Amino acid sequence: MSAEILAIGNEVVDGSVVNTNASWLSQQLSLEGIEVRRHTSIPDDEAMILKALEKAGSRAQWVLVTGGLGPTVDDFTLENAARFFAKPLVEDAASLDRIRDFFRRLGRELTPNQEKQALIPQGSIVLLNQLGTAPGVYLEHHGVHFAFFPGVPQEMKRMYEASFLPILKKNLGGEKQGVLKVLRCFGLPEGQLDDMLKDKLQGRLGLGGAQLGFRVRFPTIDVRLGARDADAAKARSLVEAAELTVRACLGDFIFGEADQSLEEVVGGLLRSKAKTLATAESCTGGLLASLITDVAGASEYFLEGVVSYSNPSKMDLLGVKAATLKTDGAVSAQTALEMARGIRDRAKADFGVGITGIAGPSGGSEGKPAGTVHISIVHPGGEWEHGYLFPFGRARFKQLAAATALDRLRRILTTP
Amino acid sequence: MSAEILAIGNEVVDGSVVNTNASWLSQQLSLEGIEVRRHTSIPDDEAMILKALEKAGSRAQWVLVTGGLGPTVDDFTLENAARFFAKPLVEDAASLDRIRDFFRRLGRELTPNQEKQALIPQGSIVLLNQLGTAPGVYLEHHGVHFAFFPGVPQEMKRMYEASFLPILKKNLGGEKQGVLKVLRCFGLPEGQLDDMLKDKLQGRLGLGGAQLGFRVRFPTIDVRLGARDADAAKARSLVEAAELTVRACLGDFIFGEADQSLEEVVGGLLRSKAKTLATAESCTGGLLASLITDVAGASEYFLEGVVSYSNPSKMDLLGVKAATLKTDGAVSAQTALEMARGIRDRAKADFGVGITGIAGPSGGSEGKPAGTVHISIVHPGGEWEHGYLFPFGRARFKQLAAATALDRLRRILTTP
Repeated sequence: MSAEILAIGNEVVDGSVVNTNASWLSQQLSLEGIEVRRHTSIPDDEAMILKALEKAGSRAQWVLVTGGLGPTVDDFTLENAARFFAKPLVEDAASLDRIRDFFRRLGRELTPNQEKQALIPQGSIVLLNQLGTAPGVYLEHHGVHFAFFPGVPQEMKRMYEASFLPILKKNLGGEKQGVLKVLRCFGLPEGQLDDMLKDKLQGRLGLGGAQLGFRVRFPTIDVRLGARDADAAKARSLVEAAELTVRACLGDFIFGEADQSLEEVVGGLLRSKAKTLATAESCTGGLLASLITDVAGASEYFLEGVVSYSNPSKMDLLGVKAATLKTDGAVSAQTALEMARGIRDRAKADFGVGITGIAGPSGGSEGKPAGTVHISIVHPGGEWEHGYLFPFGRARFKQLAAATALDRLRRILTTP
Repeated sequence: MSAEILAIGNEVVDGSVVNTNASWLSQQLSLEGIEVRRHTSIPDDEAMILKALEKAGSRAQWVLVTGGLGPTVDDFTLENAARFFAKPLVEDAASLDRIRDFFRRLGRELTPNQEKQALIPQGSIVLLNQLGTAPGVYLEHHGVHFAFFPGVPQEMKRMYEASFLPILKKNLGGEKQGVLKVLRCFGLPEGQLDDMLKDKLQGRLGLGGAQLGFRVRFPTIDVRLGARDADAAKARSLVEAAELTVRACLGDFIFGEADQSLEEVVGGLLRSKAKTLATAESCTGGLLASLITDVAGASEYFLEGVVSYSNPSKMDLLGVKAATLKTDGAVSAQTALEMARGIRDRAKADFGVGITGIAGPSGGSEGKPAGTVHISIVHPGGEWEHGYLFPFGRARFKQLAAATALDRLRRILTTP
């Protein structure tokens, strides 16, 4: 069983957008035992769309198309799909209702081009778009399965999982079962992970009967363990054995599984231990608080955060001593500690985090170059502080510093 | 002048790796006025490689290939390229020396498969690999320009810039020049933008002699205006005329150009007017502060931020009145106003922002469903407050609320 993935959109071909949809869809399809044989990206060009649908349909049993379902004049994937299938476009009443309802709830005017999104090739099955207005469609045509998704990754992923996957599974029946286990790691660069596992490998990526893969999701890395067999139980046991091996090698560098984020893991630990948290950030500028509050229900354990971007605010909001700022400097172990103590006291929280550093590119000095950061955690069991150098540019500096604080919270919360 | 980009590698097609090379190469080529018409990714499969080279060469004048140049058994792009060009593989002495030297410096043993990398199709020009061992090659074949790069992004990029670009430029001479202008918008859904422009359009995407395109970069949208002509001045003037038209239609929904972010625009305005800013966030959880501090040099105007995730912290840190929390509730216009006033007073800032709402999915009620948010800005010219409903899930809610606050700051800062 093979598949091709087709991306339609000028923004993909001209390089404005990185096509992450294709790799995501490939991974999902491989879980179902379907081998993806080709990715193609083409512009919003009628002749090219028709030709590409025909070619892909002549080679693969499944053709997944992303992009061109929106309301604007350059979104005409389904018009061309209808032409290719030799079907008229018909209005899908349920989709039209959803679009109208979407605009009603927003209190916005519905323009005619929005209604256009409810036009689908006759005989196709609507794939519900839970996050946006443009529905997707699925149609079997001369024995080939075609599915059309929006180009917006979140909408596409939700649609794939909720609406397309059941159709796919129903069609697959007794195919080989794929099992995938993802172990999420923080704190080791990819080369080192590889090195820690190399004595266990057969060939490049074999681990027992399972396959090993790595995927960088900065600042974390996924170790992916997969196996495929007609006997699902066998595939599962191959992956389980490989997981034991990897866990023995990597230990507590593994923080979670599947799609768990560091902030979810930390949130879960705080909740289960009924502990509360408050944060004091300088160089990360609120990113740590924002990550923590990305988790639904964070208000159960997150009390407050302070972004003290100036010396006066470090003193006023956090009680950092003027003498410390003068003697040790705003970027120092002592300031980080006083920030953590200050926010913990102020919020009456169990855990206080303090982060101070130089995000760069400017602001560094000989002894404290851009990328320097001090992180402190004060909690009922003690006070922890550590200095790091993350000279990787402002954005990555912020991400690494915030993730390092979260990972240390995790390690403290899991220490017996 | 058109191009196609071909990626070769199982790891691309099976989704283990996101193909960022294709978008990067497209951007580079478009700078030289070359339009990329297709991206294709295929596995390490001899028949597919031969077919793909033939097809791409039949459609485009430039074919850029990435991947499959390494030392392992599944790297055989150049073997197949030689077959396609009907040339023998010959050893390139300089490349072999470089590979040997590379391993000598690392103190590692040179294995025979490493030496294989020095074999190139006869008559091709070596593209130097400054970061790794596998050289790239360039060859003109029946009037089509083929270039082969390593799959590792850093090696490919360095090779493109240092070795391939001079060849490309020499070949281009008097080609058509491409001009692209990107206008960045906030506050209008894609369909509505389209509608505001539709009276000006010729055909689907023509605007005068220029081409119109849209690109959603949630929560903002780009309007892209492009033109291509042998006369660069003419292409520029077509785009300039289209820009005037679009600006007349969209007015101050346009907040910036090219890659400018809302936070950069707001930061630039604060800096040029020598004004300072402080933020008080509840439901956005620090995202607004984090966006503001993503901009290098934000410490010049951003003083402090507070993330008040609990009622006590709203009172303690921001001076929100207990009576307000009781009568109006934590999510209310009055609380947002008091938060903005409180942080402005506390930080002695010119602008104070207050945001309070329900990110969801839980926490909503009949009158205040999840997605409700109140935003307030207090500044020397007055007090502003507005309520919104963004029922799009937690992540998008946070992004929209933070962007709405930034956009309102921009509008206030640009009001005479």
